[in-house]
Amino acid sequence: MMEVAEASRIGLAGLAVMGQNLALNIAEKGFPISVYNRSSNKVDDTVDRAKEEGNLPLKGFHNPEDFVLSIQKPRSVIILVKAGAPVDQTIATLSNFMEPGDCIIDGGNEWYENTERRAHEVAEKGLLYLGMGVSGGEEGARYGPSLMPGGTREAYNYIEDIVKKVAAQVDDGPCVTYVGEGGAGNFVKMVHNGIEYGDMQLISEAYDVLKCVGGLSNEEIADTFTEWNKGELESFLVEITADIFTVKDDLAGGELVDKILDKTGMKGTGKWTVQQAAELSIAAPTIAASLDSRFLSGLKEEREIAAQIFREYGLTEVASSTIVDKKQLVDDVRKALYASKICSYAQGMNLLRAKSAEKSWNLNLGELARIWKGGCIIRAVFLDRIKKAYDRNPKLASLLVDPEFAKEMVERQAAWRRVVGLAMNTGISTPGMSASLAYFDTCRRGRLPANLVQAQRDYFGAHTYERVDLPGVYHIEWAKLARQMKTTAKTYA
Amino acid sequence: MMEVAEASRIGLAGLAVMGQNLALNIAEKGFPISVYNRSSNKVDDTVDRAKEEGNLPLKGFHNPEDFVLSIQKPRSVIILVKAGAPVDQTIATLSNFMEPGDCIIDGGNEWYENTERRAHEVAEKGLLYLGMGVSGGEEGARYGPSLMPGGTREAYNYIEDIVKKVAAQVDDGPCVTYVGEGGAGNFVKMVHNGIEYGDMQLISEAYDVLKCVGGLSNEEIADTFTEWNKGELESFLVEITADIFTVKDDLAGGELVDKILDKTGMKGTGKWTVQQAAELSIAAPTIAASLDSRFLSGLKEEREIAAQIFREYGLTEVASSTIVDKKQLVDDVRKALYASKICSYAQGMNLLRAKSAEKSWNLNLGELARIWKGGCIIRAVFLDRIKKAYDRNPKLASLLVDPEFAKEMVERQAAWRRVVGLAMNTGISTPGMSASLAYFDTCRRGRLPANLVQAQRDYFGAHTYERVDLPGVYHIEWAKLARQMKTTAKTYA
Repeated sequence: MMEVAEASRIGLAGLAVMGQNLALNIAEKGFPISVYNRSSNKVDDTVDRAKEEGNLPLKGFHNPEDFVLSIQKPRSVIILVKAGAPVDQTIATLSNFMEPGDCIIDGGNEWYENTERRAHEVAEKGLLYLGMGVSGGEEGARYGPSLMPGGTREAYNYIEDIVKKVAAQVDDGPCVTYVGEGGAGNFVKMVHNGIEYGDMQLISEAYDVLKCVGGLSNEEIADTFTEWNKGELESFLVEITADIFTVKDDLAGGELVDKILDKTGMKGTGKWTVQQAAELSIAAPTIAASLDSRFLSGLKEEREIAAQIFREYGLTEVASSTIVDKKQLVDDVRKALYASKICSYAQGMNLLRAKSAEKSWNLNLGELARIWKGGCIIRAVFLDRIKKAYDRNPKLASLLVDPEFAKEMVERQAAWRRVVGLAMNTGISTPGMSASLAYFDTCRRGRLPANLVQAQRDYFGAHTYERVDLPGVYHIEWAKLARQMKTTAKTYA
Repeated sequence: MMEVAEASRIGLAGLAVMGQNLALNIAEKGFPISVYNRSSNKVDDTVDRAKEEGNLPLKGFHNPEDFVLSIQKPRSVIILVKAGAPVDQTIATLSNFMEPGDCIIDGGNEWYENTERRAHEVAEKGLLYLGMGVSGGEEGARYGPSLMPGGTREAYNYIEDIVKKVAAQVDDGPCVTYVGEGGAGNFVKMVHNGIEYGDMQLISEAYDVLKCVGGLSNEEIADTFTEWNKGELESFLVEITADIFTVKDDLAGGELVDKILDKTGMKGTGKWTVQQAAELSIAAPTIAASLDSRFLSGLKEEREIAAQIFREYGLTEVASSTIVDKKQLVDDVRKALYASKICSYAQGMNLLRAKSAEKSWNLNLGELARIWKGGCIIRAVFLDRIKKAYDRNPKLASLLVDPEFAKEMVERQAAWRRVVGLAMNTGISTPGMSASLAYFDTCRRGRLPANLVQAQRDYFGAHTYERVDLPGVYHIEWAKLARQMKTTAKTYA
């Protein structure tokens, strides 16, 4: 009887920083937890931290069997290890000791199809499976992340009470919801990360314009982002950007941001987002521009050589700017950033909608925007507006055509064009902002020049075309008709 | 003895238009050919055409066994059926009757990994395998395509004499070369198609600017493209574009191009190109913008609704333009198109180089540019310049930094910026041209704002950063340091 009473409510395997923090968060919310890691020093570290941080109800295990058996049935075990093979290995180890009805929850940034494969595999042993996106970095894991669990609904019921307490709390509830079947949780987390790439790129472009076109100092940029964080752009990423520009460089003086190498790392979710968008015929140019910018940032040596070559041909890296009205520029850049951001989110949400239709996940886009309002990296006041747009119209074709967003875009578009134009004429690129603007101008245009592309396709490949004025599918012998026209023209001449 | 004497030199299975035309082309070049199709009426059609087009040495078969046995050993059989399952089915049917040492050549737009899988599968029966990209549409297949065969080198030797005669002929030889091992031929064809998407999109944007910004009539646009086809832009696609604008609409009057629905189809190779670019960390924004434009063109009804909504908020679809100097605009657009095109090709070639390194294909980029000079859809005078750039420096990091191209870009960049700026201010989008310009300005810039992205990543995810001035990998507690700065600031205040 004692043993049953002492069983933990849940288990967590994989005690890198994210795992440690999430385990401590769960324990702190009053859920006794067992933890396990393959290398045992991490187990001891976690146990020590649990003591230090207030004698939290956390038990460490050095042996997977003892770990599993310490958890109350039906068991819920969260895995937080590197995506890919380590997840399979951990499942293989733990599932040996688990029983039908128990549940495995993968909290990593996993490719959604891997989750679906594993769910099928462990189902043969009678185990349930969830793929749960966890966003918020180390801080989020410890003090309240945004959680995106997907998989078997029944399994979600096992952990609902826990995740609702562990997640970040916002005005309209905890930042967690049951996302959908199969790999839906991982997919939603993947798109979250793609949107995060977009936000970071757009902010870096805003910085670039303020610095290179407006000539703002780091202090002025810090003040600008601090100011922006009080308005429509209020968000975690704008807040930390303001912080970043204040940090001094202890080693060489000045602000540290100027000393950081302009090479950006990445981990795969942005790439997947872009590939999935292409797969599903969804245009996601802002997110793609963010990914491309990371790729090109990595080619530092090539860029420096190219800069030298073009300087020799008379093209300076950044043309001198003639901006005098800094205040106007700052205001324009804020508007450009906001409008660009709407386009980026519209792309991400439409990708989710397309995938939901393909997989019959029945994703609730408004609810997803809601659980991103807190805890995660893209958390922002703005997400409440997105939630409300989908509340107004769950079948919204695009955020761009929501009445409130449409109005905001129109109010900002002139400033947005000024910013992209100024950047372009200064020779600095704003790939994210200009991709967003091209997206906006394409999406809102009844008639595109795609008629020519379709004519070309019919010319050389007999791919046929439709007409704007008549039903049916057509094909003509373009070359022959064009030759006739030329002959006729000659005859008349 | 008679039977041996009468054996065909090669076989071709799959007699849709492309297959028929390629078979007739082969026969016309003096290589006796056997043809086969599952539905026999296509076989009879092909036999009839062979008679009509000059008693060409072509034999039709209604039975796969007779077809295979009619070919001289070691047998070479080209398959031209729809990519995917039909290829597997055709191989299954034919390989029953083939013998070790025989060779199968898939001429479809196949995903390169399928070719590599099939090569392994048929190797178990002792069969050789080639995946051969065929470009040039129906006309090319009949009168001289660009051919991109890859796979077993030995198998290429079987058909080298044939393909060298069948391919388009340009000043420096036939438009065919042994591309590389495995699926290299299919991959190269895929990138060719991605580049083709880019060319078509850029041309449609040029048309859009001439029409909506410059107010040119279809006749003036036809004349413009005709003129452009005499200079640096000389190419098949520019030539057919000129033709297209001359074709009258028999049904409703005016020029047909205005009546064609602006919805563009696609078949998968452009999508694969974008996905592979992401996979290999290669920025290909112009090609991606072309793909996205096709996606968005498909949303005709959504676009019309959006146009209506934004009109209600006071934003017209296309702002009125104030261009007076048409001649200057036409000149600028020509330069913008050319410069954008260089960027697009730079992306495609860098994608090929990256894949070649990954797969050890040892692709010869200059030679690939050469075999695209004739036969294929992207054939252009311009490709000879690309070939020469790689002849000058086979290790060229990017076409952009080739001395000749770099000089051309610098000469055109001011015009290019004017065109993109005008389009942007008119509210029409030039996603391909502006993606190219952003690519150019990013690639030639020694210092990008990616330092901020890396600082953000270190702030929320402890992803570390490097410095521009010191070796090593760093991580700091940004939030803590920023708080200290604020405290210090308050103390001083």
